[in-house]
Amino acid sequence: MTLDKEWFTEIFEDSGTAFSLKIKQKLHEEKTEYQTIAIYETEKFGNLMTIDGCTMVSSRDNFLYHEMMSHPALFIHPDPKKVVIIGGGDCGTLREVLKHPGVEKVWQIEIDRRVTELSEQYFPELCESNDDPRAELCFVDGIKWIQDAAVGSIDIIIVDSTDPVGPAEGLFTENFYRDCKKALGGQGILIQQSESPLVHQELIRAMRQAMRNAGFTGTETLNFPQCIYPTGWWSATMASVEGDLKAFRENDASGKAFSTTYYNAAIHKAALTAPEFFKSLFK
Amino acid sequence: MTLDKEWFTEIFEDSGTAFSLKIKQKLHEEKTEYQTIAIYETEKFGNLMTIDGCTMVSSRDNFLYHEMMSHPALFIHPDPKKVVIIGGGDCGTLREVLKHPGVEKVWQIEIDRRVTELSEQYFPELCESNDDPRAELCFVDGIKWIQDAAVGSIDIIIVDSTDPVGPAEGLFTENFYRDCKKALGGQGILIQQSESPLVHQELIRAMRQAMRNAGFTGTETLNFPQCIYPTGWWSATMASVEGDLKAFRENDASGKAFSTTYYNAAIHKAALTAPEFFKSLFK
Repeated sequence: MTLDKEWFTEIFEDSGTAFSLKIKQKLHEEKTEYQTIAIYETEKFGNLMTIDGCTMVSSRDNFLYHEMMSHPALFIHPDPKKVVIIGGGDCGTLREVLKHPGVEKVWQIEIDRRVTELSEQYFPELCESNDDPRAELCFVDGIKWIQDAAVGSIDIIIVDSTDPVGPAEGLFTENFYRDCKKALGGQGILIQQSESPLVHQELIRAMRQAMRNAGFTGTETLNFPQCIYPTGWWSATMASVEGDLKAFRENDASGKAFSTTYYNAAIHKAALTAPEFFKSLFK
Repeated sequence: MTLDKEWFTEIFEDSGTAFSLKIKQKLHEEKTEYQTIAIYETEKFGNLMTIDGCTMVSSRDNFLYHEMMSHPALFIHPDPKKVVIIGGGDCGTLREVLKHPGVEKVWQIEIDRRVTELSEQYFPELCESNDDPRAELCFVDGIKWIQDAAVGSIDIIIVDSTDPVGPAEGLFTENFYRDCKKALGGQGILIQQSESPLVHQELIRAMRQAMRNAGFTGTETLNFPQCIYPTGWWSATMASVEGDLKAFRENDASGKAFSTTYYNAAIHKAALTAPEFFKSLFK
């Protein structure tokens, strides 16, 4: 079986696999200051954004990633008011964070303004909260922004970045985690997308170690399905300044006044469950 | 990005997606009485078996499917002694079932003898328990076998089949479920692979309805990652004659004397957790 030109295909060298989406048409492509962004209309997954040939977000399955990058950390923190999203230019994570009524301020620090402008055009549903007065969209370098943040001024930092190559490479380092810890308050939580539990185990282990080396006291890894990412199985790793990442505001999560498609209080606990092989990997 | 001939590609029309594995070589291909079976040596997933162009089993990630098709049901049943596997010719599910010391007899009812013979050759690790005296490998039609089974003689029926087209189509029907219910004892459990929770929701809903129509009192759907299957997210649906599928022998699962790679008592509960969208889908 071979694929003709009616398919977008991403090859994952790490896993010797490839994932393809059948497309109706390419809607847009441009080379920005930082990367090449393309937008496709797919046959069954709605619109698709790719960056440097990697799938970033599709209309159909982005709910999994965006809900799991936001709600678990926001329901673990006892009272999150100030949230920073590093990357996240498609604004899907921002939308989810703003569903929490207690949140007073969200800074979205996306280096490439064109990611957000194209998301506003092709994924308007993800951008529906961009005009919320609590949201501030900044198009600057996230590493620098975190370095300059006032000590202890942030409750949650969400690193919603591309893979650890190119512009995002500096977001996967102990130095960056040290700056995050400084910017976070005593109950602060850092959460970062951490690739596939099936094929990026060494990356996840190194990330957790670097977070602890940077002074975070606890780390936990969430698992969830994400069809368009390598292996279809994805993760996010959390680090806490001092709180217990296994505890969460379960009553608030169960009684949340906003709607979700994947996340609920039971899924929160399920996503934190370690498969048997984690026990030897993260011992 | 296009894929050259060094890739095996399966197209999933239902979801407008395709999945590819980079291959070193094709090791075998034959047309049997029932289907076309091919074996590939992949670059990063070990060996791969395909049937009629669909991925069936890879050395690297089969543990997810085989563990989740067996251990949850076996730990839900209070004392499973007699187990039937319909399909399952690669023998990976059989191996997992035989890890339970209380199991006295397992019949594996695979219609195509060549699936098992090729698995013995190319996936010897999955077949390491085929000589267990408790195992009986039968190469006959599973639908007929279940029809002829003595009433109430089986504790667990595992339907480990291909997709609901071709030889497996009759395994996704109310008539078949009725025969299963007749063959099962009072605490009996039927578990069947039920495709992708992301793109086969209607199939899962119809399956659950058909199981209840056939007289089963409860149904529950397990979720788990499975990289090589469509969307990378898979499910298995259970039906109970009269028992509570949410209860299980948790102490036995926690203290199991055999090793697993994915399954443990916490994963058991996590896999049974319904994503938010299940609530409207299965109401």
